[in-house]
Amino acid sequence: MAILQAIHNIAEICAQKNVKTAILCPGSRSAALTISMARHPEIKTYSISDERSAGFIGLGIAQVTKETVALICTSGTASYNFAPAVAEAFFQEIPLLVLTADRPPEWIHQYDGQTIYQENIFGKHVKKSFSLPADYNHADAVWQVERVVNEAINLSQSFPKGPVHINVPIREPFYPTEHEVVRFDKQVRIIENASTVKKLPNEFFEKFYEIWQSCERKLIIVGQQQESQLSKVLKNISDEFSIPVLSDIISNVSFENVISAHDVFLSSKNENFLESLAPDLIVTCGKSVISKNLKQFIRKYRPRYHFHIQENPELIDPFQTLTHKVEVSEQYFFETVFGDLDLMKFKEGDDEDQNDAYFALWKAANQKSVLKLDNFLLNSLYSEFKTVKNVLDKTPENSIFHLGNSMSVRYANLIGLSASTNIEIFANRGTSGIDGTLSSAVGNALSTNRLVICLIGDVSFFYDRNAFWNTYLPGNLRVVLINNQGGNIFRIIDGPNRQAELKDYFVTEQNYTAKLTCEEAGVEYMQVSNEQELEKSLESFFKPDNQAKLLELIVDGEISAEVFREYKKLFAHFV
Amino acid sequence: MAILQAIHNIAEICAQKNVKTAILCPGSRSAALTISMARHPEIKTYSISDERSAGFIGLGIAQVTKETVALICTSGTASYNFAPAVAEAFFQEIPLLVLTADRPPEWIHQYDGQTIYQENIFGKHVKKSFSLPADYNHADAVWQVERVVNEAINLSQSFPKGPVHINVPIREPFYPTEHEVVRFDKQVRIIENASTVKKLPNEFFEKFYEIWQSCERKLIIVGQQQESQLSKVLKNISDEFSIPVLSDIISNVSFENVISAHDVFLSSKNENFLESLAPDLIVTCGKSVISKNLKQFIRKYRPRYHFHIQENPELIDPFQTLTHKVEVSEQYFFETVFGDLDLMKFKEGDDEDQNDAYFALWKAANQKSVLKLDNFLLNSLYSEFKTVKNVLDKTPENSIFHLGNSMSVRYANLIGLSASTNIEIFANRGTSGIDGTLSSAVGNALSTNRLVICLIGDVSFFYDRNAFWNTYLPGNLRVVLINNQGGNIFRIIDGPNRQAELKDYFVTEQNYTAKLTCEEAGVEYMQVSNEQELEKSLESFFKPDNQAKLLELIVDGEISAEVFREYKKLFAHFV
Repeated sequence: MAILQAIHNIAEICAQKNVKTAILCPGSRSAALTISMARHPEIKTYSISDERSAGFIGLGIAQVTKETVALICTSGTASYNFAPAVAEAFFQEIPLLVLTADRPPEWIHQYDGQTIYQENIFGKHVKKSFSLPADYNHADAVWQVERVVNEAINLSQSFPKGPVHINVPIREPFYPTEHEVVRFDKQVRIIENASTVKKLPNEFFEKFYEIWQSCERKLIIVGQQQESQLSKVLKNISDEFSIPVLSDIISNVSFENVISAHDVFLSSKNENFLESLAPDLIVTCGKSVISKNLKQFIRKYRPRYHFHIQENPELIDPFQTLTHKVEVSEQYFFETVFGDLDLMKFKEGDDEDQNDAYFALWKAANQKSVLKLDNFLLNSLYSEFKTVKNVLDKTPENSIFHLGNSMSVRYANLIGLSASTNIEIFANRGTSGIDGTLSSAVGNALSTNRLVICLIGDVSFFYDRNAFWNTYLPGNLRVVLINNQGGNIFRIIDGPNRQAELKDYFVTEQNYTAKLTCEEAGVEYMQVSNEQELEKSLESFFKPDNQAKLLELIVDGEISAEVFREYKKLFAHFV
Repeated sequence: MAILQAIHNIAEICAQKNVKTAILCPGSRSAALTISMARHPEIKTYSISDERSAGFIGLGIAQVTKETVALICTSGTASYNFAPAVAEAFFQEIPLLVLTADRPPEWIHQYDGQTIYQENIFGKHVKKSFSLPADYNHADAVWQVERVVNEAINLSQSFPKGPVHINVPIREPFYPTEHEVVRFDKQVRIIENASTVKKLPNEFFEKFYEIWQSCERKLIIVGQQQESQLSKVLKNISDEFSIPVLSDIISNVSFENVISAHDVFLSSKNENFLESLAPDLIVTCGKSVISKNLKQFIRKYRPRYHFHIQENPELIDPFQTLTHKVEVSEQYFFETVFGDLDLMKFKEGDDEDQNDAYFALWKAANQKSVLKLDNFLLNSLYSEFKTVKNVLDKTPENSIFHLGNSMSVRYANLIGLSASTNIEIFANRGTSGIDGTLSSAVGNALSTNRLVICLIGDVSFFYDRNAFWNTYLPGNLRVVLINNQGGNIFRIIDGPNRQAELKDYFVTEQNYTAKLTCEEAGVEYMQVSNEQELEKSLESFFKPDNQAKLLELIVDGEISAEVFREYKKLFAHFV
């Protein structure tokens, strides 16, 4: 038995419990974890030097696979560099097992190197935080390690999924001696968590249908979620009962009559129009919605009833209208509702005229604004907004899109995707930070054969440029970088554009292009600065290849802000 | 009065309380803080996009000025990106005022963007954490803001100095309207903290002198500190009473007979030699020491008495031999001791033979190992160790050196600086992380006219390359980058070099050079790959200029590891 056998066994427990990917950040204190993860035949490992990027690469992998990814770092501020990814994972409900090596507790704040207060370092941003003992020989210590690792992995996977932290104090010697063979104990303890399913009693549904029938104007709103099966049942409900289903681009719900342009037409200042869309009942599911216009619309035109369907036990009420919280899976809820309503309809005959009229209003607004926006962009100057439209139009089917925060995700949400493309959208909307977009996209690309396209602005790109500082960049990665030389969102939103500090303190102009970053990372680089070049480049750019590629779109920030102002003017008096 | 007048007044309180530098990270939630800091005529501001780098730039400024620097960021994970710098500041006792804008508390975890749990986000790594109210109109709220900002700045400056956090929830509107003028209320409340001085009663000194006289072999050890006055009194004590004073390179204590090569000769395995140096009494001051050999020597050859002089109330005992903790300033303590001993000597006549013999042993070991190391490096191959020697030898007087962690600070400590150079040394030894070395050096350079030389390895450099991603790089910045294509410390220390994972998971080889990073940042770039080129380049490189410069030394990692092994062999049987 190795001195740190209990530590080596963590890799075995991970492998047996389906934690098959580990991101290893170099360090001595964590050597036993690194060595055992790297040597375990069933665990795929990546060595990433910048822990901030490493955390988001792990998050990106778990976004795609839905399986827990292990993050491993040495002691000291290394662990704090994981924190942005851990917070994002917590709010986005992405499963991570964060193992931070540490000095034994008696050496904290004793002037030894790389030593900070690591216990509970991620605060409320992990589902639970554990500390292992520093000595791993006593039988109870071995039992504790095994139990804790089991509990942590179980927790990361139980609903709501999320990050779990284990602090791992380790004494020297850190490295196996020459004669010490690292073995994995196949008999390591595995404690399974029986999965449970929450169901609702008939009484609930009876009450729900009573309310449902009593309301004329019903709306379903889907926030961010990745469950691809949800489209089908929501399409059925929408088609069969004429219910408008509102879906942001990050909601991954797409079908012919889905309402996806609400962020465009709800910006209208036409009160009669908005009032005509006011719902009596809304049913929401998923996490955050992008559209501030939608939030303000619902908050102003308050429905009498608001059911939120989500297993997360937190009481979250972004529309400020919640009346019923329903902690079951969306799939189960909507399938039951569809089945029951369908049966009722069959029994009682059709009586959906009211629904039809209301649905027709939403559909008309949606279609009209899609056409109007298309037409506007067709005739507008080369700018951020227009290039996003060009890119979305040319994106191959079955791709994955990782949308950057700030303007990228907003433009994409306004434009939307056609229902037939089968494109899956990821975005770090848990905290909406710009700090890990590129790394997350790298993680996405590492865990799929599909084309992964990262749509990102220049500030987010350079912030996280260490995403490229590793040897793993996969050939299915495509980065579309919209470079407007700064944080152009500050030119676009109302407020900063009136301040003397606009350029230097808000936009914070920067003159980098990605050319050199790509050159040193071995990423194929293309640059365009007008629409013709863009159109010409996109086809070859999106072709499958064994080479990561970046397409940099140089756009003018002021023209882009002007185009966006024109767009807002155009829709201010929509309908 | 502006809507957010209480927030604008924070800038006025800062200015009146000598917080004259603010690092502003772009964001909307923090706009009122940004605008008021930028407009305040007495506050110098920098806009830095990557908060991790921003935090360390602020820390670097405060390292030099000793004054509190304000860090300002928007809500969400932005604040977590400050955390590595905040932890470093806490353990290094650097004064920072960290102002994190936040959503009002009722919106936390309600699916709104850029919202995390920011209260107490830095855990135990700040001296105190405050939260302001979200509404700033009530008179009590205004009183609270003023009181809290006063308390925070006072705390950051009271001993031990350190970072203090104020979380600042802000409601919309964030930006002043067109007709709103941002004014600073000169009558804002200022609450001063009367500074106190801790003294020791005569009884203490009587007891101390009794012990002092009873011990034959006395040693003074100085850990990291920046108090330039300390050299003088310690030189007097050393000269007058023949007491060896051990000073690491980060201790900033330098005089002719100071012992600075202890890290070299205490690596000896010659037990007779080591035993001959064993002390009866040690007096320590300052923070961490670099030399593991010194720590192990003291732990093994335990003194009967160990006095640690430091105002920090934490009981810190890295040598595991502490018997007396003395919470007064080092300057006061040593000056009193020197004065009293001098008087006693005058009265009682000289009786210092024992001291002389013991001091002679240390001096001899020191001189011999300096010569032996010089000779070794003169004849060794071009390698990391040798290049550091070349650089230190050519460094202009009165410069500031910012030493990177991992090997840079260790090499520099082994080589040492000649007493006459008046070079000040900074290093982030609070947590010994590699995450902010370059940014800290940029901060150092921004706050002095002296030449600031950052000695750094390639992993630390690229980790923190966003230090160059701003428009403020000053002409007195010189970066000496030792590029050995990875984390070569893992080839040098014992353990990882025996593992199959050495290259991929510990060294984590990387093939970047800094050429392109410098090109895009407008930093003058020079590269050398042998000793002749290095010698030739150093002179022009160190010349004063208005241009930030980087000198990249390409060295071979394996040769460097071999040279270090030879060095260790040479000193294993020293004396």
